[in-house]
Amino acid sequence: MSERIEVTYRVRAAADTVAARAAALAVEQSVEMPVGAIADAAIRDAYVGRVEAIEPVENDAGWFAVRIGLAAATVEHDAGQLMSMLFGNSSLHDDVVLHDIALPPAMGAGFGGPRHGIAGLRERIGAHDRALTATALKPQGLSPAALADLAGRFARGGIDLVKDDHGIADLAYAPFAARVPAIAAAVRTACRDTGHTTLYVPNLSGDLDHMRDQIAVARAAGLAAVMIAPMVAGFATVRRLVAENPDMVVLAHPSLGGAARIAPPLLFGTLFRLIGADAVIFPNAGGRFGWPRETCLALADAARRPWHGLAPSLPVPAGGMTRARVPELLDLYGRDVMLLIGGALLEAGPRLVEATADFVAAVRRHDYMGDSP
Amino acid sequence: MSERIEVTYRVRAAADTVAARAAALAVEQSVEMPVGAIADAAIRDAYVGRVEAIEPVENDAGWFAVRIGLAAATVEHDAGQLMSMLFGNSSLHDDVVLHDIALPPAMGAGFGGPRHGIAGLRERIGAHDRALTATALKPQGLSPAALADLAGRFARGGIDLVKDDHGIADLAYAPFAARVPAIAAAVRTACRDTGHTTLYVPNLSGDLDHMRDQIAVARAAGLAAVMIAPMVAGFATVRRLVAENPDMVVLAHPSLGGAARIAPPLLFGTLFRLIGADAVIFPNAGGRFGWPRETCLALADAARRPWHGLAPSLPVPAGGMTRARVPELLDLYGRDVMLLIGGALLEAGPRLVEATADFVAAVRRHDYMGDSP
Repeated sequence: MSERIEVTYRVRAAADTVAARAAALAVEQSVEMPVGAIADAAIRDAYVGRVEAIEPVENDAGWFAVRIGLAAATVEHDAGQLMSMLFGNSSLHDDVVLHDIALPPAMGAGFGGPRHGIAGLRERIGAHDRALTATALKPQGLSPAALADLAGRFARGGIDLVKDDHGIADLAYAPFAARVPAIAAAVRTACRDTGHTTLYVPNLSGDLDHMRDQIAVARAAGLAAVMIAPMVAGFATVRRLVAENPDMVVLAHPSLGGAARIAPPLLFGTLFRLIGADAVIFPNAGGRFGWPRETCLALADAARRPWHGLAPSLPVPAGGMTRARVPELLDLYGRDVMLLIGGALLEAGPRLVEATADFVAAVRRHDYMGDSP
Repeated sequence: MSERIEVTYRVRAAADTVAARAAALAVEQSVEMPVGAIADAAIRDAYVGRVEAIEPVENDAGWFAVRIGLAAATVEHDAGQLMSMLFGNSSLHDDVVLHDIALPPAMGAGFGGPRHGIAGLRERIGAHDRALTATALKPQGLSPAALADLAGRFARGGIDLVKDDHGIADLAYAPFAARVPAIAAAVRTACRDTGHTTLYVPNLSGDLDHMRDQIAVARAAGLAAVMIAPMVAGFATVRRLVAENPDMVVLAHPSLGGAARIAPPLLFGTLFRLIGADAVIFPNAGGRFGWPRETCLALADAARRPWHGLAPSLPVPAGGMTRARVPELLDLYGRDVMLLIGGALLEAGPRLVEATADFVAAVRRHDYMGDSP
C-alpha cells in the first residue's frame, strides 16, 4: 500500500519559516524521528510524511495551509490509529489546526461510514419531504418513570425523535436497564395514539462491553437507534459498535469535541460520518455556543456531500435553539436536517405537548421555496 | 449520594459578567436546561451545578477561577461519563479551560488509580534509588525483525524501558502478533547477557477487544507492561483494561491530548493517574513542544502527590530530549522520573548501543545533591 492520506493543516508561521515548520510537522505525524537517521531508503520513501503544498490562507495573515501526504499503510482501517496519525502528537502544538483530509478510495470504503444515513433515518420515521424534529430528555436526576412521562408527552406532541440528554448515563437514579424499556413503552403508547412514529434514542455510556449490553437492552425494548459521543468513547469503540449492529441507527454527540484545533466540519461532518454516524449533533450558530454560521454550514455540507460512496449523515443543529428560529434554520439548511430543541420545549412545563406540536407544525408547514424534495 | 465533585474552570470574562457566565457554565455541565423549568425542587437541589467560588486569576487579567460543584451521582465510576460531566459541552466554548478537580473520597478510591505506580515500576526494573531511562522503537515501517534488532541493541545499552512508538499499531508490515514476541525475545536475550532488566512495552491499538487480544499476546510473550493513549482509546476503555489486567503495568501516551483547554497537570497528571496509568509520558519543556517548564513540573507534581491513597504515577518527560540534558532534567524532577530519549539515540546509528549506554550511565551517576532515595 503506497497510497497517501492527504491531510491539510493550518499552520501559524512566518513566511520564511513555514517550510521548515511544515517539514517538522510531516515528520512529527509520521516517523517521529530525525529522517537522516533512517538508514533504509525504502522506509524513508514510503513512510516519512511528505509536504505536498504550502499556501497562505486567504484573509488570515500569518496562517498557511500545509498539505501533507501520510502513508495509508500506517492506518489501514483502525479508527483510533487514524486519529493518532492525523493529529496525535501535533494536537500538543498550539500553532497547528487539523483542517481537512482526503482519503485514498479504498480507505473510505473500508471504514464504511453510516449504515443508514439520511435516507435510513427518514425511512424509519416515515418523513421524506421535510426536515425532521428532535428533542432531549432532561434534566439529570429524573427517575425512569419521570423520564418516561416526559418522553411520552414529547411523542404526543408529534416529535420525530427523542434522545436522552448526553448527561444521562447508566446511573443509580435511572439505570439504563430500567429507564430505557420504560421510556420506550411510553413512546410506543403515545405513537399508537398519534399514528406518528417517534424514535426514542438512548445514550450509550461506559466501555465497549457496557455499550454492547445497553444495545441489547435497547433492541429488546424495540428501539432502532442509539446515541454515542465518539470523542468520549473513542473512535474505535464507535466503529466496532457500528459494525456489530448494522440494524441500529447511530447518532453522534459532540461531547468533549471542542478540542479547539480540529476544524468542526472535519471532526463532526467528515470523521464522525466516516466511522458510521447516521446523524451528527452540533452546536448551532446563535445558540449557547459561539460557532459562526459559516462553520455550521460547512459542517452540514461535509456531512451530506457525496464522499467515497458513503451514505450521508444527517446534520442536527442544536444547543439553545428555539421554535422562533425554525424558518431561518430551514432556509439555511434545507430539508435534509433534523432540528433539535430541548430546553426551550421543556420551559413550556404543563404545556409541553402543545409546545412540541407547535414546533412540529412549524417544521411541517415550512416552504422550501421551490426546492424539490 | 449528595456528594459533589469540585471542578475549577478558568473562565475569560469581564468582572461584571463573570457571575452570569459561571452560572451558565454550572447549568451547561449539569442539567443543561433552564433551571426555572425544573419543577422538582429536590432535583434542582441535588443535580444543578452549584457555583461555589469565583476569584480573579492572579497575573492573568480577564480570567477568573470558577469553582463549580457537580453531583457525584451523575458520574459514579464511569470514566467516560466523568469526562463528559467535567468538560463535555463546555469543551465547545472557547472562553473556558478545565483547570482542576477535587473528588469526594469514595470516588478516588472507586476509580482505583495505578495498580503498580512508581514503586511497582521500580520493582520490576530493579532500580530503587535513581531515575529510570526509556527509549522508543521507530520509525514506522520497520519489519518485526528490524524492530527486534533495534530493541535488542537498546537493551544491550542497558536502557530500563523500550516502548513502541505510538504510531506503531497492528499493521500489515509489522502485525502485533508477529512483532511483539520477536521484540520480547530479542530484549530477553540481551538482558540475559547484560544481567540488567529492560522492560519492553508494546503499544495497544484498536478497540477494547483488539486490545484484549494484544494483551494476551504480550502476556504470552512474557511481558509485564503495555502502552495506551487514553484520549484515543477512550477513558472507559483504559479503566476496563486496567481492571481486567491488574498484573500489567500501564504507560499512558499523550496522543490527541492537546485539546488546548484542559490544563496538562489535570489531564495527564491527575486524570490519567485516576484511571490507572502507572506512568505518564508528556512533552517536556525545551524539546519539540512548547509547554513551559512550570506546566511540566506541575504535571509531575500532580502525578506524584499523595492523592486519595492512589499509587503515584511515574512522570516520563519526552519529546525531543537529549543526553546533554540529563543532569538538568534530574535536577528538575528528582529521582522519581523516567527520562525518555528516542530520536537522539536513534541518530547514533551503528553506535546506538554505546549512545544508549552513555545515556544510562549519565542517569546512573547523577548526584541528587543530598536528596535521600
